[in-house]
Amino acid sequence: MEKKEIKMLLEQVATGKLSVEGATLKLKEAPFEDLGFAKLDYHRSLRQGIAEVIYGAGKTPEQISTIARAMQEHGQKTILITRMDADVANSVGKNIKLKYFDMGGIGIVGEMPIPDGRGKILVATGGTSDMHVAEEAALTAEALGNEVTRLYDVGVAGLHRLLANKDDIMNASVIIAVAGMEGALASVIGGLSSCPVLAVPTSVGYGASFSGISALLSMLNSCASGVSVVNIDNGFGAAYQASMINHVGIV
Amino acid sequence: MEKKEIKMLLEQVATGKLSVEGATLKLKEAPFEDLGFAKLDYHRSLRQGIAEVIYGAGKTPEQISTIARAMQEHGQKTILITRMDADVANSVGKNIKLKYFDMGGIGIVGEMPIPDGRGKILVATGGTSDMHVAEEAALTAEALGNEVTRLYDVGVAGLHRLLANKDDIMNASVIIAVAGMEGALASVIGGLSSCPVLAVPTSVGYGASFSGISALLSMLNSCASGVSVVNIDNGFGAAYQASMINHVGIV
Amino acid sequence: MEKKEIKMLLEQVATGKLSVEGATLKLKEAPFEDLGFAKLDYHRSLRQGIAEVIYGAGKTPEQISTIARAMQEHGQKTILITRMDADVANSVGKNIKLKYFDMGGIGIVGEMPIPDGRGKILVATGGTSDMHVAEEAALTAEALGNEVTRLYDVGVAGLHRLLANKDDIMNASVIIAVAGMEGALASVIGGLSSCPVLAVPTSVGYGASFSGISALLSMLNSCASGVSVVNIDNGFGAAYQASMINHVGIV
Amino acid sequence: MEKKEIKMLLEQVATGKLSVEGATLKLKEAPFEDLGFAKLDYHRSLRQGIAEVIYGAGKTPEQISTIARAMQEHGQKTILITRMDADVANSVGKNIKLKYFDMGGIGIVGEMPIPDGRGKILVATGGTSDMHVAEEAALTAEALGNEVTRLYDVGVAGLHRLLANKDDIMNASVIIAVAGMEGALASVIGGLSSCPVLAVPTSVGYGASFSGISALLSMLNSCASGVSVVNIDNGFGAAYQASMINHVGIV
Amino acid sequence: MEKKEIKMLLEQVATGKLSVEGATLKLKEAPFEDLGFAKLDYHRSLRQGIAEVIYGAGKTPEQISTIARAMQEHGQKTILITRMDADVANSVGKNIKLKYFDMGGIGIVGEMPIPDGRGKILVATGGTSDMHVAEEAALTAEALGNEVTRLYDVGVAGLHRLLANKDDIMNASVIIAVAGMEGALASVIGGLSSCPVLAVPTSVGYGASFSGISALLSMLNSCASGVSVVNIDNGFGAAYQASMINHVGIV
Amino acid sequence: MEKKEIKMLLEQVATGKLSVEGATLKLKEAPFEDLGFAKLDYHRSLRQGIAEVIYGAGKTPEQISTIARAMQEHGQKTILITRMDADVANSVGKNIKLKYFDMGGIGIVGEMPIPDGRGKILVATGGTSDMHVAEEAALTAEALGNEVTRLYDVGVAGLHRLLANKDDIMNASVIIAVAGMEGALASVIGGLSSCPVLAVPTSVGYGASFSGISALLSMLNSCASGVSVVNIDNGFGAAYQASMINHVGIV
Amino acid sequence: MEKKEIKMLLEQVATGKLSVEGATLKLKEAPFEDLGFAKLDYHRSLRQGIAEVIYGAGKTPEQISTIARAMQEHGQKTILITRMDADVANSVGKNIKLKYFDMGGIGIVGEMPIPDGRGKILVATGGTSDMHVAEEAALTAEALGNEVTRLYDVGVAGLHRLLANKDDIMNASVIIAVAGMEGALASVIGGLSSCPVLAVPTSVGYGASFSGISALLSMLNSCASGVSVVNIDNGFGAAYQASMINHVGIV
Amino acid sequence: MEKKEIKMLLEQVATGKLSVEGATLKLKEAPFEDLGFAKLDYHRSLRQGIAEVIYGAGKTPEQISTIARAMQEHGQKTILITRMDADVANSVGKNIKLKYFDMGGIGIVGEMPIPDGRGKILVATGGTSDMHVAEEAALTAEALGNEVTRLYDVGVAGLHRLLANKDDIMNASVIIAVAGMEGALASVIGGLSSCPVLAVPTSVGYGASFSGISALLSMLNSCASGVSVVNIDNGFGAAYQASMINHVGIV
Repeated sequence: MEKKEIKMLLEQVATGKLSVEGATLKLKEAPFEDLGFAKLDYHRSLRQGIAEVIYGAGKTPEQISTIARAMQEHGQKTILITRMDADVANSVGKNIKLKYFDMGGIGIVGEMPIPDGRGKILVATGGTSDMHVAEEAALTAEALGNEVTRLYDVGVAGLHRLLANKDDIMNASVIIAVAGMEGALASVIGGLSSCPVLAVPTSVGYGASFSGISALLSMLNSCASGVSVVNIDNGFGAAYQASMINHVGIV
Repeated sequence: MEKKEIKMLLEQVATGKLSVEGATLKLKEAPFEDLGFAKLDYHRSLRQGIAEVIYGAGKTPEQISTIARAMQEHGQKTILITRMDADVANSVGKNIKLKYFDMGGIGIVGEMPIPDGRGKILVATGGTSDMHVAEEAALTAEALGNEVTRLYDVGVAGLHRLLANKDDIMNASVIIAVAGMEGALASVIGGLSSCPVLAVPTSVGYGASFSGISALLSMLNSCASGVSVVNIDNGFGAAYQASMINHVGIV
Repeated sequence: MEKKEIKMLLEQVATGKLSVEGATLKLKEAPFEDLGFAKLDYHRSLRQGIAEVIYGAGKTPEQISTIARAMQEHGQKTILITRMDADVANSVGKNIKLKYFDMGGIGIVGEMPIPDGRGKILVATGGTSDMHVAEEAALTAEALGNEVTRLYDVGVAGLHRLLANKDDIMNASVIIAVAGMEGALASVIGGLSSCPVLAVPTSVGYGASFSGISALLSMLNSCASGVSVVNIDNGFGAAYQASMINHVGIV
Repeated sequence: MEKKEIKMLLEQVATGKLSVEGATLKLKEAPFEDLGFAKLDYHRSLRQGIAEVIYGAGKTPEQISTIARAMQEHGQKTILITRMDADVANSVGKNIKLKYFDMGGIGIVGEMPIPDGRGKILVATGGTSDMHVAEEAALTAEALGNEVTRLYDVGVAGLHRLLANKDDIMNASVIIAVAGMEGALASVIGGLSSCPVLAVPTSVGYGASFSGISALLSMLNSCASGVSVVNIDNGFGAAYQASMINHVGIV
Repeated sequence: MEKKEIKMLLEQVATGKLSVEGATLKLKEAPFEDLGFAKLDYHRSLRQGIAEVIYGAGKTPEQISTIARAMQEHGQKTILITRMDADVANSVGKNIKLKYFDMGGIGIVGEMPIPDGRGKILVATGGTSDMHVAEEAALTAEALGNEVTRLYDVGVAGLHRLLANKDDIMNASVIIAVAGMEGALASVIGGLSSCPVLAVPTSVGYGASFSGISALLSMLNSCASGVSVVNIDNGFGAAYQASMINHVGIV
Repeated sequence: MEKKEIKMLLEQVATGKLSVEGATLKLKEAPFEDLGFAKLDYHRSLRQGIAEVIYGAGKTPEQISTIARAMQEHGQKTILITRMDADVANSVGKNIKLKYFDMGGIGIVGEMPIPDGRGKILVATGGTSDMHVAEEAALTAEALGNEVTRLYDVGVAGLHRLLANKDDIMNASVIIAVAGMEGALASVIGGLSSCPVLAVPTSVGYGASFSGISALLSMLNSCASGVSVVNIDNGFGAAYQASMINHVGIV
Repeated sequence: MEKKEIKMLLEQVATGKLSVEGATLKLKEAPFEDLGFAKLDYHRSLRQGIAEVIYGAGKTPEQISTIARAMQEHGQKTILITRMDADVANSVGKNIKLKYFDMGGIGIVGEMPIPDGRGKILVATGGTSDMHVAEEAALTAEALGNEVTRLYDVGVAGLHRLLANKDDIMNASVIIAVAGMEGALASVIGGLSSCPVLAVPTSVGYGASFSGISALLSMLNSCASGVSVVNIDNGFGAAYQASMINHVGIV
Repeated sequence: MEKKEIKMLLEQVATGKLSVEGATLKLKEAPFEDLGFAKLDYHRSLRQGIAEVIYGAGKTPEQISTIARAMQEHGQKTILITRMDADVANSVGKNIKLKYFDMGGIGIVGEMPIPDGRGKILVATGGTSDMHVAEEAALTAEALGNEVTRLYDVGVAGLHRLLANKDDIMNASVIIAVAGMEGALASVIGGLSSCPVLAVPTSVGYGASFSGISALLSMLNSCASGVSVVNIDNGFGAAYQASMINHVGIV
């Protein structure tokens, strides 16, 4: 059914009755009019060639397995499951073939796609304890078709570690700066790079870090231009937008 | 002096002794080693062909005029002055030719550049009272070489106004969503578009809006993927990053 | 004793010595002068024909059973028990016949009343994780004599899901909008409907959602008219007021 | 144009081709499809027979006058202007006939409508300093077609003042409880009445009242059932919803 | 040693060489100059004839037993142990004879003193869930030599319950008002009484009660005169000051 | 009228038909049943022989003068006007004889009463900038019939200043501790005295004093027993309760 | 009088009856026993040879002049007046010879002392707008006998500016890091230096900088060791402690 | 390799080709240019002769053991492990010889160094429950080569305990003041001493202590000069800076 519609649309494009831009717009609009949730997903996948995402938190292994299998049957090649504990992953893995990454809480069903973005996404962290959030970001970015460089434990209290990697910073297409405590990493990297920096405050720290508020405020007040911020510990959100940026203008 | 260095570098490129990528990297690195503040600016301008920015808040008309004139003498074609009151603009205008935009608090010395980004930047606001911040964003984006579409007063309490403009939303390369009060605009637009959305909370509202905190929190907690946030009222910051995104991969 | 007073009063009404309005007022006033807690409940029940409520949190199964049985003996037909864990419900169920709803944490002793309100109460949620609070609201509304329409997982990031149900929204007598994270659902629904909207912020979310503060502030700052707010996760409170509204002018 | 559509629709109703319910639904839906802002207003007025509202804050006297005159020409009989200073009102009054209420910051163009709600709306305040917000509520309610009872300075520290007026409280259809400082009025009134109570925290107080936060939190945590809350100082918002409730089921 | 000093002092008083006031002042001053912690306690006991207090939280059963026994050996007749769990009380009870009050978390070693204050201390609560804090207050007051009236579950949402007990309120010498949620009890009682009211916010509630902040702010902003506030859940602190007030001018 | 009632009541007392306690209770109860605001005041005055209070903030000079004159006509000997600016005081002074205290913002109509409390009220401040609040407290206490000792600028950073006055601290009947910044004064004084300490946080300070929040929290968390707290800058409230305490048991 | 005591004490030292340490301890202790405020100051001056400080905020020009003159008469060579506006300084300058520094709000009566600390105090700022606070720190440090290096506008978004001055950072004895917005300067400098860093958050910034809270939290959460923090905008406090550190072990 | 570089450098010093200061600077600079993390540590150790620190929180026993052994092999004599639970310490102790201090959560590998600072570091606490943080500070200070005086349970509510130890306070080189609840200890000690005071707020307390915020704010607003503050519960951070201060000018 849906496939028919899409075929017809593509034939119109093929015969010149519809421009590519026009067709793309039609596909994007579709969910607006009468589609349900599943359709939207299907469209997005078809349009962008990237992974579908299952937000794992609060879902049972059965629910996750069911959704993932339905996606597979629709032809989805990469399925990303976020915020999934090892226990849940273990149970899901009995139902469907799954690669689980403990650091990051990420499961991947299917193959990681071949990167097709403009450049590299750099994921940097202030400390080793920010790695869990950073891996959520890095694996998400990879699952969405991006090449990722990891640069961990380069907090601003030891600048030499950061400066030793300035080539990575300068060559990145987008940078995801992950830091807790005082969250200064985003500002320092923002000052060193000329690409967009997406800052992820983490809940790492104690006392007056207030579970990430300190880092969040630092990042929002960054004196460097070109820095925007996502929610505390939201590695997925940063990677999702980073991937969008890294694919700007790529159909 | 600096010009010499740059010339030498460019000659090396011309004669094939240095690749373009190598030279670009060199220029970016330069500020690292021994340059002062002015040099950095000069490099950035040379590299990106875009406007230099003067943060007007807290600066005297004399200071602004002096900096602007120095930039002009360096060959800068577009100079953007932000956060400038009408009074200050009036005084600056006596020293240097200036186009002042009261709504937005922006002054432009020189010509607006010809847009050279990938697509259009859409600036949307929830209400008419968010326009000051939105214009700061829109004018900044234009001064940085972007084509801008304005979509004002499309707050979520009157969805038909927003839906009537869904083509603009779907065709944008980047979207800047400006809203105070409950800040829901970012989420709704984020759900309608497939491009990055930069959310700008504004201090518009009263009572429990707490000068923008309500909108800021809403935007950070957006249930839509692809949304990141800048500081309250920071139209400039959103536009700066939007321009970066709209120029990704463009030398 | 109390029964005698009420009988006398009703006889006066029957014989025309007292108008219905006068009698109603007297009954409402009664608790004021010398009645204890139980009396109040009895009056309310008699006056409104609706369910009595036991707030289960912090009460032992024995306490709940005792209160419920006392109510039954007073002739109460529907007894609503809120904020009750499955364990407690299990114990209570051994003492008294009980229907327990795990999603919502609600127990019902007796029969659900036949709806006698003016119209339907619509209960809408932003996401599936808001369902627990929504069911507390929906079941409470039903126990208080209302017909309820459930519209779950219609968050603003996927507007088409909400718009596909606009008839439900427009036909409702009262709407309860349940949402966590950025809480934008209340504003969007408020803009689509012309009936009162009661917003329930939920503690669903992470990071800067601050256990419901983000949603609470959004809802208080709603740019839509006709929206009021109850405490975080207070599905019962919203349903109680919604039922009052749905019974306005009905004796 | 629009008038034609509406006429056609009404003729269909008149000839039985369209039920009243069907027509009402059509009119409500209209703004959804292609209408602009003005159309919506026109529809609402036609549908509800009540006042149009102009939010005066941040608007110039010229803007207010222009909008009010346009509404008058559309046949609007009552136009409510909120959040208007005396100075602005004075200027507006030179362009258009206006009745201004200093206490409340409200201007009325045209006649107050004849009340057509189910019952009375009671507006109660804790102290005399809450009167400005209370009058915004009371005048708004009157402009929207409600009979209003005012009960001012009945704060909980002098219960006898409140109890002396318990008949007013018990006879009300909806109650708007306006209070600053500790905001306890809403709970006490909520306990005395069996109708919905809309609580309006005010920014009245000093020190740890934190410009209304203390009252806001008190009201959200009310131990009385049937209380919901609007934004700090939002007398208009409470009255708007109160009017909706007082007109439930009235076409 | 210390006894000698005190004896000498008392002999001076006896022989008229030192006035009673002078001696009292000396005893109070003593800790200032060279005394250690134990001495202070001994003095206080000697001076006031009331209970010594052991703050149980964070102390092992052994520590509590040791301190209590040492006090007993010094002749202390009543020893009050606060913030003690049932488990700890059980262990302590094996070492020293102890009466434990689960509701209140209070242990008493020795006899409760005969009340010797000016009047009665009334302890009132808004709800049954505030009883734990209220009992900490009531038992502390009794251990410090006060007659206590308990008035529980008289929250402001059911005023008749409070008004039915107005004689108790008006006859009290000091009132301790214990309430969570909106904390309005203190204001209402403050308005009904002419004696000092000590307000104790409790952490009872959920959502926007923020573990007692809502009640705390309400109480600080009480519109009733004669109300002061202690820390959240600090029943002991309120009772300690209440006892001081109830013993003003009593040697 | 009212006078008649009171006379009758006193005659009953005189002839032994009514006990003093019974009569006092009756007078206290009176406001409950049918009295308006003025009556209450009259009763209080009659019962306590102390000053009536007019809260001046937000009242016009005319309103203040009218109320004060009405009180005088009722025979009130001392009228206390709080929170009154010098300008307002000047205007009021033209209508009625007034003694104005700039430091404290207090006006007194009539004579200060002869102190009749149990002992002295000590008013202590941390710094000279807390004096405005302290004088509000001190003058209020004097107007309510208390002898007051002032001990200003004895902040804890210069302990010798405080210790030099330990006799005043130890001899006080009640202590009002007024301090901004870190608010430690209350704890130190609480540790030195055996009478109730009422702590008044002031909004004095800058930066992280957050207009008195720092001092407020310190005082609520005082490690000294016998300390309770009133609202920020609420010198009047502390003095009112202090006077109650200083008059405990005095008819 | 006091001089006599001090002379006697010094003679005892001179004749070997008292060790230098013993005498120093005595002088420090003196204020403890019976001295007033002025004596303390005099002692401090005598002991440390440094400037006396007058906190200017809230003092009249007359008060400042009087205190300063009294100090001069006691032989004080350098008198530092902080938090003084230009207007006040102008008035004070008519009474007493004064050098006023507008940037910093500092007045100096007498001569700046010859630096006698161990090394240099470095005062660094993130931006030019932090200069007011930085100058308060720098001038205070100079008035207390320290050599000061100023390093302004070296914010972390332009690392090259900071790195270009690493010798100054590494050679400092103490560093005062002054920054608003995200306050990252303290961490970066803390990582580059091996001396104590005193961080001063400033209220510079807008939106979510919350008048210095953002910078304050960043600095408290610094990931660099050796960083402590003073109150927002408290340049004086940082300099006072920096001077203490720079004079450790110097009599 | 590195050793060679350092040898060469030292030979240059020995032969007069390089001054000591020049060499020190070189060593400090080294990490800047090309060194990795391990080198830095090695340098610091070589330069300062003090303990290396392992932050234990979040590290496995294996990781801690591995790092500690590597340090030992580099010749590190004292290795300080912070924030280590007893369980982890037990496991680590099986791999490497370790002295564990339960109170403080500190492990020491190797010998405590011989103190080589200028004077003593005094660690004072308000209560016994602050001891855990205080011991983290005291043991850290000792491991970094300082003599430490402990002064516990000297809270301001019992001033005599503090004053009895004023010699310790006056003789200290640096003071670490550790306190929860109202945190007044820092101010009182700051007023008694003439050396730098580093204040450590602790999370000890309940209710409105808000896990250390109350103490933190008190300390930031200290009215005593010479007080700076570290993060809540950060005993290590205070001790690290205290050691720096105690070693100022000592190579």
